[in-house]
Parts: sequence; C-alpha cells; structure tokens
Amino acid sequence: MIVLHELDTFRGFLDEARAGGKNIGFHPTMGALHGGHSANVRRVAAECDVAAVSIYVNPLQFGPEEDFASYPRDLDGDLARAEEAGADVVFVPREMFGQEPLTTVRVGHLDQMLEGARRPGHFQGVATIVTKLLSLAGPCFVYFGEKDYQQLLIVRRLVSDLSLPAVVVGCPTVREPDGLALSSRNSYLEGPERKAAPVLYWSLLAGKRAIEEQGVGDAGAVRAAMVEVANAGPLFVLDYAAVADPCSLEEVKVVDREVRLLVAGWIGRTRLIDNVKATPGGD
Amino acid sequence: MIVLHELDTFRGFLDEARAGGKNIGFHPTMGALHGGHSANVRRVAAECDVAAVSIYVNPLQFGPEEDFASYPRDLDGDLARAEEAGADVVFVPREMFGQEPLTTVRVGHLDQMLEGARRPGHFQGVATIVTKLLSLAGPCFVYFGEKDYQQLLIVRRLVSDLSLPAVVVGCPTVREPDGLALSSRNSYLEGPERKAAPVLYWSLLAGKRAIEEQGVGDAGAVRAAMVEVANAGPLFVLDYAAVADPCSLEEVKVVDREVRLLVAGWIGRTRLIDNVKATPGGD
Repeated sequence: MIVLHELDTFRGFLDEARAGGKNIGFHPTMGALHGGHSANVRRVAAECDVAAVSIYVNPLQFGPEEDFASYPRDLDGDLARAEEAGADVVFVPREMFGQEPLTTVRVGHLDQMLEGARRPGHFQGVATIVTKLLSLAGPCFVYFGEKDYQQLLIVRRLVSDLSLPAVVVGCPTVREPDGLALSSRNSYLEGPERKAAPVLYWSLLAGKRAIEEQGVGDAGAVRAAMVEVANAGPLFVLDYAAVADPCSLEEVKVVDREVRLLVAGWIGRTRLIDNVKATPGGD
Repeated sequence: MIVLHELDTFRGFLDEARAGGKNIGFHPTMGALHGGHSANVRRVAAECDVAAVSIYVNPLQFGPEEDFASYPRDLDGDLARAEEAGADVVFVPREMFGQEPLTTVRVGHLDQMLEGARRPGHFQGVATIVTKLLSLAGPCFVYFGEKDYQQLLIVRRLVSDLSLPAVVVGCPTVREPDGLALSSRNSYLEGPERKAAPVLYWSLLAGKRAIEEQGVGDAGAVRAAMVEVANAGPLFVLDYAAVADPCSLEEVKVVDREVRLLVAGWIGRTRLIDNVKATPGGD
C-alpha cells in the first residue's frame, strides 16, 4: 500500500493505473476509520483492480459551532486499518487548496432538508470536496456509506447533474451487536451515553415493523411509533424522525411503496443519525 | 468532422482519442459562430491533436428578462464554420440534463462583481455548465475568449479550485476593422447602432493611452478619460468603466502595475462589453 500526499501524484497514480487497463474503486473518508470503513474498503478491493482511499477532515463541511477541531484523528491507526482491509493507495492531501477556494458546489433543495436544515452549509462543503476528489480521481467507482443517506443522495445527484465520470455505489450500514450504527463520532460517547445510543436503531425498527409487519400505511402513525420509541430511552434528545421518499427525501403521507426512515438527535453533545429502508409487505 | 449529440458518445470519442495518445483541445461555445470563434478553433487545431467544439445555448446563464429565446442560432452555418476552421468533432447536445438539475457551481465573490452584479445568476449558470462540459471532455486544453474576461477568470478559478483536469487557455479578442470586438450579439445591431458600437473600444483605448503613454497613475483619472469618450458618441449608454486588478477584478486606486480596463453598456436593447490590458510604460 502506498500513501500519497500531493493532489497531482494521486491523480497521476490513478491515471497510470487506468492506462494499464485497471479499473479504480475509491472510498473517500474523513479518517477515524472504523469497522464500517473496513467493510467498505474490503468491498472496493474485492470489486475493483485498484482500491483507493482518501483521508481528509474537510473543514468546509463543519459549521463554526461544530466539532472540526475535536473530530477524531488517528492517521497511523487509519493507515493500518486501510492496509489490513486491502487498500492499494491512500491519499492524505497535505494541502487541498493552493489558495482560499472561491468555488462552491451545491445540490439545491436536497441540501436544505433534514440534516441540511440543521447544519447550514454542511452539504455544500460535502458537495464541493466530493466534486474535487472525483475530478482528481478521474473515472472510477466511488463508494459511500448508506449511514449518511442524505449525503449519498446528494453525491448521486451531483455526479449525474455534472456528468462526473464516476459510478456511485452505496454501502450498507455496519452495526454494533446492539444495533448502533458504526460512526466515527461514537468515540465521543461515554459509558451511559454509549449504552443509550442504540435507541436510534430501535426507533427505526419500530417504524419498519409498523410498515412491514403491521401494514401501517399512514406515515403519521409510522412517525409516531418511531418518536415513541426514541423518547422512551434515557439521554437521547430526538431532533427528527422522518418517513421519506427514498429519492427526493420529501416526507410522504401514505406509505404505499418503499420509503426511507431517518432519525437524528443528540446524546449529550454528540449528534447521531441513522436510517433504514422500509417496504410495505417487506422486501 | 463528426457531429455528436449525446453526452456519452462525446465523452467516449474523446476518451478513445486520448487512449490513442492524442491530446484534446476544446472550445466551448454558444453557437452563432463568428470570426472570433474561427480564430480560436484554428488555434485549437494548430495546437492540439483533436479539436473539439461544443455548441450549446445554455439557458442557465440567461436571466428571465434576457435574450435566451432570441439568441442567434444557426446550426448549419456554425457547423460549416467549425469545419472550415479545422474542428474534428462538434458536440451539439440534444439534451444536457436527463432531469431538472439541482446542482449549481459558483465562484463566489468573482461572480458578484461587474457583469455578475448586473446579471444575477449569470456566472453561476456559466460555472455549472463549464464544470459539466469539462467533466464530459476529460483531460484537455480548454480555450476561452478574453472578450468575456470575467468569465475567463471564473473558469480559471473553478478549474483550479475543483482540480478539474483541464488547462485553461485565453484567446485574444478579435476585432472588426473599426475596433468593435466580435460578438454574437453584434448581429442585433442595426445601421446607426452598429456604427456607434466601436465607442466601447475607443473608450478602452483612451484609458490605455492615459496609462501607457501619458503615465496617468490615478485610476480615477483613467476612469474619467474612459467615461468621457464613452459618453461622447451617440446611442451608447454606459453601464460601467472599470480599472481593475487583472486577477481579482477589484477596482484599483493607483495604476502601478498591469491592470484590466473593462467597459459595458447598452446600444438600444443590446448589451455590449469589451476589455483590454494596460500596463504603465506599455508592454
């Protein structure tokens, strides 16, 4: 596994691999790699000739009150984990912009809902960096986790709208044995907080059960079931529970086809999000 | 010369040429090709293995009150002119977006000044389409005219900020014998309007002479010389005359290095712009 720090050498490395007939799989990350990332990288390595990973804590996607400074960073641990999972090249940009960037990319509407409404500018920061990373990487399969479902939709949309030469692949969420979705921010959780955190998943399961097993078609009733479970546990403060169209993320009124259930909230100072698919009659 | 209408075939054609070791030169246009475009395409053909031209009247860069509907269109004439100038491939997209695009690209600050202040959303439309065209074209030399100087700066900046795999080449403005810069919108000008139109260039030359021959260092005095000439002719209504930094486009106060002189205004319902470089002591 090689580690590259310059934009041009990363681009050149992948250009050369492609010129040699290899296809490229690329998993962009913010580091603090966990088992979810490992699963994604293993999949990239299994499906593509060259498995590339980027590690960059993107300041553009953090609000001024958010945790950019304290976001977990462990480059040695990340490199070990990436290598163990089969990465061929890890890109750790020393400097992402030669000068203060003026250019921003946004995916209007989609970036204003749910997480976008709570984190102004967040998805613009994501979209801008993803566009840049995909420009650097060139034609590739690019893998994003479904855990950040809204982000995945935004990336799909910008790749399509801007005709970026990438194929976007969504990766299923990896969970702890108690159901908590793996996330770099889980490291913020202390004893009782960690114990309370699976409530997001239980809330999603309550909504999924209502749709798939109890045949509830009224989205308001599904949401109520999610909210009830979310509010039943200790420490968790619910922000939203949504029953949404899986493409547009618009709230649905009637659940008569596949929907996406999404929850977000706080445990202490840690913001957590999670989501699952639900389909009337089950999958 | 071949003409392609689908995004994927355009991308595929250029990918194949590159795979065969050829480099690509690309001149994006809105059609209504004139002698300025011809000069640019001739240059692309002379400097690059494959000369690509796109023709697309981009609705995103026209305001609701602007001339999108009446913008001159002459595809047969354009194709003849492109071929005569040495184009190898002309891309005339049948459909630029498969669905209503949500994604926008903007180059903040630079897109708010001068033309941006008068044409809200204009440069966002330009930046979005240029990003898409460059994503489709892949690694290339991309040629833009200096006549649209602010556009050229914006394209340079977005290519740099987003690490698009393009090298931006500016092409000198081509002028009629009387000094009028070639522009597709010149076709709107009727007899006396056409005769009055070179006043933009005279105004620029007055500013350039003040700086280069008379050694005027006060930008206000340079601007006054430009305004005086601009207002002296018939029919022309000046919008702005600017003495600006050639990179940031900020107004300068003292002319002690190279500057860009820019003028814009109206003749009847036709908006015209022009610009020249000026350097104390001359070039």
